[in-house]
Amino acid sequence: MQAKTLKELAAHVGGQIIGNPDVLIHSASTLARAGAGQISFLANEKYEKQLGITAASAVIVKTQADIALDQIIAEDPYYAFMQIVVLLHGHRKHKAVGISPKASVADSAKLGADCDVHDFATICDNAKLGSGCRIYPGAYVGADVVMGDNCVLYANAVIYDGCKLGNGVIVNANSVVGEDGFGFATHDGKHHKIPQVGVVVIEDDVEIGVCCGIERGTLGDTVIGSGTKIGDSVTVGHGSKIGSNCLLVAQIGVAGSTTIGNNCIIGGQAGIVGHVTIGNNVTIAAKSGVINSVPDGMTLVGAPAIDAAKGRRAYSMIEYLPDMKQSIRRLEKQLAELKAANGQQAGSDGK
Amino acid sequence: MQAKTLKELAAHVGGQIIGNPDVLIHSASTLARAGAGQISFLANEKYEKQLGITAASAVIVKTQADIALDQIIAEDPYYAFMQIVVLLHGHRKHKAVGISPKASVADSAKLGADCDVHDFATICDNAKLGSGCRIYPGAYVGADVVMGDNCVLYANAVIYDGCKLGNGVIVNANSVVGEDGFGFATHDGKHHKIPQVGVVVIEDDVEIGVCCGIERGTLGDTVIGSGTKIGDSVTVGHGSKIGSNCLLVAQIGVAGSTTIGNNCIIGGQAGIVGHVTIGNNVTIAAKSGVINSVPDGMTLVGAPAIDAAKGRRAYSMIEYLPDMKQSIRRLEKQLAELKAANGQQAGSDGK
Amino acid sequence: MQAKTLKELAAHVGGQIIGNPDVLIHSASTLARAGAGQISFLANEKYEKQLGITAASAVIVKTQADIALDQIIAEDPYYAFMQIVVLLHGHRKHKAVGISPKASVADSAKLGADCDVHDFATICDNAKLGSGCRIYPGAYVGADVVMGDNCVLYANAVIYDGCKLGNGVIVNANSVVGEDGFGFATHDGKHHKIPQVGVVVIEDDVEIGVCCGIERGTLGDTVIGSGTKIGDSVTVGHGSKIGSNCLLVAQIGVAGSTTIGNNCIIGGQAGIVGHVTIGNNVTIAAKSGVINSVPDGMTLVGAPAIDAAKGRRAYSMIEYLPDMKQSIRRLEKQLAELKAANGQQAGSDGK
Repeated sequence: MQAKTLKELAAHVGGQIIGNPDVLIHSASTLARAGAGQISFLANEKYEKQLGITAASAVIVKTQADIALDQIIAEDPYYAFMQIVVLLHGHRKHKAVGISPKASVADSAKLGADCDVHDFATICDNAKLGSGCRIYPGAYVGADVVMGDNCVLYANAVIYDGCKLGNGVIVNANSVVGEDGFGFATHDGKHHKIPQVGVVVIEDDVEIGVCCGIERGTLGDTVIGSGTKIGDSVTVGHGSKIGSNCLLVAQIGVAGSTTIGNNCIIGGQAGIVGHVTIGNNVTIAAKSGVINSVPDGMTLVGAPAIDAAKGRRAYSMIEYLPDMKQSIRRLEKQLAELKAANGQQAGSDGK
Repeated sequence: MQAKTLKELAAHVGGQIIGNPDVLIHSASTLARAGAGQISFLANEKYEKQLGITAASAVIVKTQADIALDQIIAEDPYYAFMQIVVLLHGHRKHKAVGISPKASVADSAKLGADCDVHDFATICDNAKLGSGCRIYPGAYVGADVVMGDNCVLYANAVIYDGCKLGNGVIVNANSVVGEDGFGFATHDGKHHKIPQVGVVVIEDDVEIGVCCGIERGTLGDTVIGSGTKIGDSVTVGHGSKIGSNCLLVAQIGVAGSTTIGNNCIIGGQAGIVGHVTIGNNVTIAAKSGVINSVPDGMTLVGAPAIDAAKGRRAYSMIEYLPDMKQSIRRLEKQLAELKAANGQQAGSDGK
Repeated sequence: MQAKTLKELAAHVGGQIIGNPDVLIHSASTLARAGAGQISFLANEKYEKQLGITAASAVIVKTQADIALDQIIAEDPYYAFMQIVVLLHGHRKHKAVGISPKASVADSAKLGADCDVHDFATICDNAKLGSGCRIYPGAYVGADVVMGDNCVLYANAVIYDGCKLGNGVIVNANSVVGEDGFGFATHDGKHHKIPQVGVVVIEDDVEIGVCCGIERGTLGDTVIGSGTKIGDSVTVGHGSKIGSNCLLVAQIGVAGSTTIGNNCIIGGQAGIVGHVTIGNNVTIAAKSGVINSVPDGMTLVGAPAIDAAKGRRAYSMIEYLPDMKQSIRRLEKQLAELKAANGQQAGSDGK
């Protein structure tokens, strides 16, 4: 971490300086935690009050704030902040270990230039790795796997045989790509395993969190589109296709043979049934249960998942079910009384 | 993959040929993807339209379809398809590696004939493996574990000490069998770990997906019945018993001391509380939350889970809660008006 | 397991003996399974009937039971039982293996006295372990990790670089501590990875189940407070802080930047959104979806989560939505009839 002037940082993100361009910034932090020599940002209005009390030396904002702090004005403050964090802190450095003699690399495997294969990692027969791949201890690359350049498999990540990873794919620790799909033909009460002939194809720049499982397809392939980011403990069923630049937060389940479009955002613990089609730019709230196909651009909440426009209110009203029930009972009683009174009245009228 | 004639395939599955018995089939695929030389199937009416447009050379159907394609008529087309996929494609072949010198096998461990123990696999003291077991890299077999014949532990699967696996058990990558149950005695605000004295017993022909955790019992054992298939990221709590030939899809949680019968089907992300009894042939829909015991044969949906016969409709009606609330308000208003009018009327009557 | 007299056991837990102090007890079991020579306990009234039929030689109870069995009276029978299980059965014994020559320990790593580092375990540069740590096969301790005394990392557990574990921390098999938080800045439709500069701090006496993921913080640290116990497949998001002596059962998701107080109990499959504050002594039922901050002492159920006092009833009423809808329709019809009748009547009155 080498300190930079605010001027250098502003130039790096194409922002405009308000205040002292020569203030030195050594690192980045949140508004609440930042101190002298640190830069922070405001991207969410919710935290606007913190602008007034932060001890940061400078902040990145979208529009000039009425505060005494030095500022960088940037159109997308969070993006600018990301660029500055990369500049000041950098991404994780991978130790250059080369091909460890304590690793197990098949003679038939082909590795590109500048790969690291750590102790106790396994590269099986005919696997092909591009250049600059980092294979951490205990990671397993099955037979016939093909990986592009600059992939990272963290400790104990497992890629089953035949799967294909593009360039810049990151698979975090203890995740699995390409296990058999959950496919059984049930006959006379027994479940007979169907060979899962497809593989998993992971396109460029995908990151997968820890403890995920991406099943291989039964006959076709399971596909994760380029630029899609997947959090921890996500399961993707056999033959599903997830588009490009999606965000799947954590503990999501996508059942088999489902297609998800591009630029979708799926919240934690959401589940999507099999054999449906989710459009592009769809947002699915955390814990939703999607049981039907979804057109482009929708936002869904709840289980079963419905249009968020009415869904947020609808699900929040479950709380009032006892009150509603009581209202209905009261109405029934009052109506019965009214009918009885009317009957009496009608009777007396009829006299 | 050696091509077979339609006649050979029909004979293999005990089916009847409609069309040319000599057509050569080299592989299997879905109706939508199949091309020349491929066979597909129709098991779900939902896909019937695809029969008319598939480019497959032959299809397996339950009753003769009015199409120009060569057909195999089979009573259970999906089962027949499975048999044909096995015939044409086969199950995964495990490379015969024997006992790798780079594995760690305790002197006191006993291995049956024809076992493969890959590099970096660990077999601890007094473990006993039957014949034909495949222990992939990084897999761990704890002390005193007993495994039957033809078991497969994929990469980095972990079996804690003392657990018992029957014949033909498959544990996929990064799953764990036999970790301590979540058992603590809370006293004066501190949680004291209770030794988990039981083990896990996995009966014959069970398959467990990736990233699962099957806890050992506190005092008795946790049991997974024969022929049961478990998907990815499933957690089974301490002391629970799951019957035979169940299907547990993915991300399911079964809390401790619960008993599940035979032939149950449990959908993804469902949860079952502890200390309840689920009967035989019970179906639990995805995302259900089961909080009570369930008699044989029921189908449940929702959280809390209720009889699907009414539950599917009930949960789908959450969407209309705002409308219902509005209806109740309107009724209240109208009733008040009516009462007021009646009162007036009554008043004028009483004059 | 050496047998003890009831007198010895009573003395060990500070309990009072009813019956024969000399009866020999060799092990512990549940009321339903216990036999001669075994001790059991009654902590939950639900099982009181089993007291009459248990074959145990002795039981631990809170108040003297009117049964012929020998008894230990203890104020907290479950705690007493735990103490006795520890006495009779003990916790898991870890085989003393020392530093295996088949492990990979960096020259710059520092290990305290009496550590076990098993085959295929990896200890990276500058890692520091206290005394009495047990590092099972395939476990991975990243660079600059600091661990206290008596920690246990079971097989294939992974600690990313720089994380800090206190004393007596247990991480079960295939769990991960310190992977990058799910932090991306989305710009022009692409998700740019934000370096995750924080680490994970795990305080003393925390136990983490299998297949968990505890993300490192983006700028600050993720913290798990002392004495907190976490079950299987739990995900904790970046920068969240969990207090002391909490119980998080299985498959729970805590999103990023959320703070949870002390002594909270969170049920299986519950989810908590990011950026909220949960107080002390909060109980969150299984499968709940918490979307707001929660004051001290509350109990919540449901998704969305609401006060259990009304929530249990409210969620159980979803089942009756079709009936309620029908009641509303009936009311609307009856009211319309009544209005029509009144109108007629009014009309005839007006004649």
